[in-house]
Amino acid sequence: MKLKAKYVDVDTGEVSVLMHDFDCAELGLRERDRVRMCFEGKTVVAIVTTSDTVIKKGEIGLMGDTIHTIGAEKGGVVDVVAASRPESVEFIRHKMDGAELTTEEINTLIADISSRSLSNIELSAYVTALYIRGMNIRETADLTKAMVATGETIKFDDGPIYDFHSVGGCPGNKITLLVVPIMAAGGCKVPKTSSRAISSAAGTADIVETFAKVSLTPQELKSITERIGGVLAWGGSLNLAPADDMIIKVEYPLGIDPHAQLLASVMSKKKAVGANFLVIDIPMGEGTKVPTMEMAKSYARDFIQLGEQLDIRVECAITYGGQPVGRAIGPALESIEAITILEGAKTPNSVLEKTVSICGMLFEMGGDYQGAEKAKQILDSGKALKKFREIVAAQGGDPDIKSSDIKVGQYSVDVIAKQSGYVGGIQNKALVRIARTAGSPKDKGAGLVISKKVGNKVDKGETIFTIYSENEWKLQEALKMAIRLEPINIQGMVLARVPAFSRVAL
Amino acid sequence: MKLKAKYVDVDTGEVSVLMHDFDCAELGLRERDRVRMCFEGKTVVAIVTTSDTVIKKGEIGLMGDTIHTIGAEKGGVVDVVAASRPESVEFIRHKMDGAELTTEEINTLIADISSRSLSNIELSAYVTALYIRGMNIRETADLTKAMVATGETIKFDDGPIYDFHSVGGCPGNKITLLVVPIMAAGGCKVPKTSSRAISSAAGTADIVETFAKVSLTPQELKSITERIGGVLAWGGSLNLAPADDMIIKVEYPLGIDPHAQLLASVMSKKKAVGANFLVIDIPMGEGTKVPTMEMAKSYARDFIQLGEQLDIRVECAITYGGQPVGRAIGPALESIEAITILEGAKTPNSVLEKTVSICGMLFEMGGDYQGAEKAKQILDSGKALKKFREIVAAQGGDPDIKSSDIKVGQYSVDVIAKQSGYVGGIQNKALVRIARTAGSPKDKGAGLVISKKVGNKVDKGETIFTIYSENEWKLQEALKMAIRLEPINIQGMVLARVPAFSRVAL
Repeated sequence: MKLKAKYVDVDTGEVSVLMHDFDCAELGLRERDRVRMCFEGKTVVAIVTTSDTVIKKGEIGLMGDTIHTIGAEKGGVVDVVAASRPESVEFIRHKMDGAELTTEEINTLIADISSRSLSNIELSAYVTALYIRGMNIRETADLTKAMVATGETIKFDDGPIYDFHSVGGCPGNKITLLVVPIMAAGGCKVPKTSSRAISSAAGTADIVETFAKVSLTPQELKSITERIGGVLAWGGSLNLAPADDMIIKVEYPLGIDPHAQLLASVMSKKKAVGANFLVIDIPMGEGTKVPTMEMAKSYARDFIQLGEQLDIRVECAITYGGQPVGRAIGPALESIEAITILEGAKTPNSVLEKTVSICGMLFEMGGDYQGAEKAKQILDSGKALKKFREIVAAQGGDPDIKSSDIKVGQYSVDVIAKQSGYVGGIQNKALVRIARTAGSPKDKGAGLVISKKVGNKVDKGETIFTIYSENEWKLQEALKMAIRLEPINIQGMVLARVPAFSRVAL
Repeated sequence: MKLKAKYVDVDTGEVSVLMHDFDCAELGLRERDRVRMCFEGKTVVAIVTTSDTVIKKGEIGLMGDTIHTIGAEKGGVVDVVAASRPESVEFIRHKMDGAELTTEEINTLIADISSRSLSNIELSAYVTALYIRGMNIRETADLTKAMVATGETIKFDDGPIYDFHSVGGCPGNKITLLVVPIMAAGGCKVPKTSSRAISSAAGTADIVETFAKVSLTPQELKSITERIGGVLAWGGSLNLAPADDMIIKVEYPLGIDPHAQLLASVMSKKKAVGANFLVIDIPMGEGTKVPTMEMAKSYARDFIQLGEQLDIRVECAITYGGQPVGRAIGPALESIEAITILEGAKTPNSVLEKTVSICGMLFEMGGDYQGAEKAKQILDSGKALKKFREIVAAQGGDPDIKSSDIKVGQYSVDVIAKQSGYVGGIQNKALVRIARTAGSPKDKGAGLVISKKVGNKVDKGETIFTIYSENEWKLQEALKMAIRLEPINIQGMVLARVPAFSRVAL
C-alpha cells in the first residue's frame, strides 16, 4: 500500500506511525500491530496507532524521529506492508513460561531492545517476567555480554584496568571522588563511569559536575585514563550498553529492578571499559536496597560468579548503609566534603575509612599487599589531591581547585533538637526526600549537612542538621518536610521512668 | 506551576500530556511520572512525556481527548502539580511477588483500569504478572465482579435468563445463530452478546452483521429479549465490563491470554446480563485454544466453580474442535449455512448435532427434560426459523430473510486434489489464515467452503475446498497461501509400498 508521509511532531519513545482506520483494515492491521515502510531503498519497521482525526485515508503519520530515520520528506510516498512481531516477543513469552533462555534468544532480545524495535508494552512484559522468573548465572552472563555487544566498548593499550561500583541506596556516598585519584596516584588505571541520581539526592556524576565536565566521549575517557590514570565520567554520554537505558525507562514507572537486570546493568558497563579488577560496594542496612546481611551475601556471590563468567575478578565490600556516609548530602556539599579530605581533613571518619578500605582491596587485588596502608600514605602525602586536580583539569575544570571554591545554596536553616538525648537512628529515605525537596540534585547547591549521627549526644537547642537551598520557597518546603518526617530520632537517656504511684494503681 | 494549555492532536490511548524538560525538572518529574492538572475546579491526572520541540517552557500539551476532559480551551491556564502513582501499581507488584490480592485491591485495580488511570507499561505488567502467577477462584470471582461493577448491567423484569458462550478457537462455529432462535422459540429468554473476530475468520457479531444490525443499546437488548425471547447483539457497543477491552488491547500484542482474565472476561459479560443458566462450549483438539482433554476438563471445572461464586449455574460442553464445525468459514458463508439449516437442511451434520446438544443442555438446566428432543422438534417444525426472522426484524433486518438473500464474494476458486486418498487431517489455523487473506472478516463475502472433511474419500481432481473473495487480487493471494500451507492433508490408502528389489538392496 502506498501512503503519503506526514510529519507528526510528537515523540512517544517508540518508533511509531499513525494510520487511518480504513487503511489499517485494508492491511488487516490492529492497533499496535507493525508495518514495514520502504522509501527509496530504506526500510523501517514501526508500531501502528490508528487514528481518524490527525491522519486521512491514504496518509501515514511519522512520529518524532521516524521521518528522518527513513528519509522521507513530508508528502513523500512510502510503501507500507504489514510486518510481523519481532521474534523477541516469543522469547519474552518463553521467560514468562519459566524457560531458560538460550544465548541466541538473549542476543536477539537485546539487539531488538537496542534498536528500539520493542514497544513499551513488550518491554514491560520483559522486565516483569524477568522480575518474577529470574535468570541463572549463565543467562545473566549472556545478557551482560549482549548489552556490551550492542554498545560502545573501550580498549586500553595495556592493563590492568581497575574499577569500582557502589550498588547505591545509601545517601552521602561520595567516596568515588577519593577512590579514583588515590588509585590513579598509586599507578593504577581507573576509567570510572558513574550515573546521575534517579531517586537519590545526588549521583556521582551530579557531584563531579559541580567542578568538572562529565559528558566525555569514549576517546576522551580513554585518553584521560591513559594519560592521568583516572577519570570521573558520566556513563550516560558514552553509550555503553544502551539497552540498559531503555530498560530502566520501563522499570522506573513500575518501581521494580529485576535482580538479573541489576547485575547485568552494573557488569556490562565494567566489561565495556575492559575492567580486570573490580570492587563492588554493597551498602547494607535498613533503608537501603539491601536490608539484610543474608541478602547482601547473596548479591556478593552473584557478582563474583558473574565476574568469573565475564573474566573480571570481583571482590565485594559489604558496608554499613543504615545511615549516610559522612555528613554531607547533595552535589556541592558532597564535593566539598570529599575535597576537604583530599586537602588533609581527618573527618568525617566514615568517609575516610570506607575510602581507604575500598582502595586497599583494589590495590591488593593487583598484587600490592598492605593496600590500605598504601592508600592512606597516598592520601596523607597530598599525592591524591595532586592527582585529583590533574583529573579535574583534564575534564575542563580549575587545575587549582579548592574545597572553598564550591558554592552551596545561599539559603539555609538549622534544624535543632527539641530535647536532649542520643541519636537512636537515622532514616535514609526521609533525608533524601528532604534534600530533593530543597532542590537536589537539579539545584547543585541544595542538600543537607548532618551534625549529629547515630550514637552522638545531643543537647536541647543544638543543631541536628542544616538544610541548604538555592531557593527560599524550596527551603521552607524542605523544612516543613523535615519537621513532619523527623529523619533523625533522638532518644532520651532514660528510656522509661515509672512513677511510684503507678505500682499502687496496679 | 501554571502552564498554558496547548492541544496536541494525537491519541496514544493513554491520558497523557507533553511538558517541557525544564518544567519537568522544576517539578522533579521524570518521563512517565504523573501530574494532577486543575482547571476551573476540574481535575485530571495524566502521564507526562517530556519534549523540547512541540512544547515550549510554560506550556502543557494535552493529547487526544485530555483537553476536552478537563475543559480547558487552547491557551487556558492549567494548574499543574506532581502526582503520585496510582495505588494499583503497588497491587500489581504484590501479584508479581506471588501474593493473593484482596477484594479491595482488585476493586481498586479494575476501577483504575476502567478510568484509564493506568499506563500501557503498567497494564502490561499486570497481564504478565497475572499470566505467570495466576489467580485463585476467589480472586477471579472478585475480578469478575469488579469488571461487572465498572460497566453497564441489564436487569430483566423476570427470569430465568439463559445464555451460551463458546471459548472459541474452532473455525466455522456458527451455531449461535441456531441456538438463540431455538431457545427463544422454546420460551426461554436469551440476551446473547457476541464479539467480533480478533484473530479468527469471523466472530458471531461479524456473521450476524451480514443480515441485521448488531450495535444495540442496553435498552434495545433488554426490550428485544423481553418481547421476542432472543437477541443477537455485539457486546462491544453495550459497554459491559469495559475494563476487559483495555486489558485485551495489551494482551493482544503480547499474544497472551491469562487464564484468570479469560475466565473473568467471559463470565463478567454473562453476569452483566443477569444470566441464570449458562452453557459453555469448549472446543478441544489440535489447533484450538484447548489442545488436550485434561486442559478442557480443567477449564470446565474453573468455569463451573466461578459460576458458583457468581450465582450462575454453569454446565460445560467439551466439543470436538480439531476441524471446523460445518463446511463454511467467513461471515456471509456462515450465515448461509446456518440459515439453510433453519430452513430445513439436514446437513452439515456437525452443525446440526452440536446445536441440538447445546440447546438440549440449556433446556434441561431449566427443568425441561429431553431437551435435545425439544430442540429438534422446534427446529423441524419451522418455529426456530420463524423466531429467527422475528429477531432479524427486531434488529432492523429483512423480516422475510432467506439464505439465498445473503451475498458471497463474486470471485471464487476451487482447490482440487492432486491425488486420490482420504482426508487425514485439517489444520484450523491454516484455514483461518487463508480466509483472512481472502478478506475475512472485513470483507463479509470472503471465506471458504470445505467440500472434504476428515475421513472423506477424495478422488484426484475433485474439489477439496473453495475460496471466495470480493477482490480478485486477494483471491489470488489466498490461493497462493492455500497451495503453500496445504491446510487439508490427503493420505493415500496405501501408506507405503515396498518394491521387491528393496529387499535385495538391504
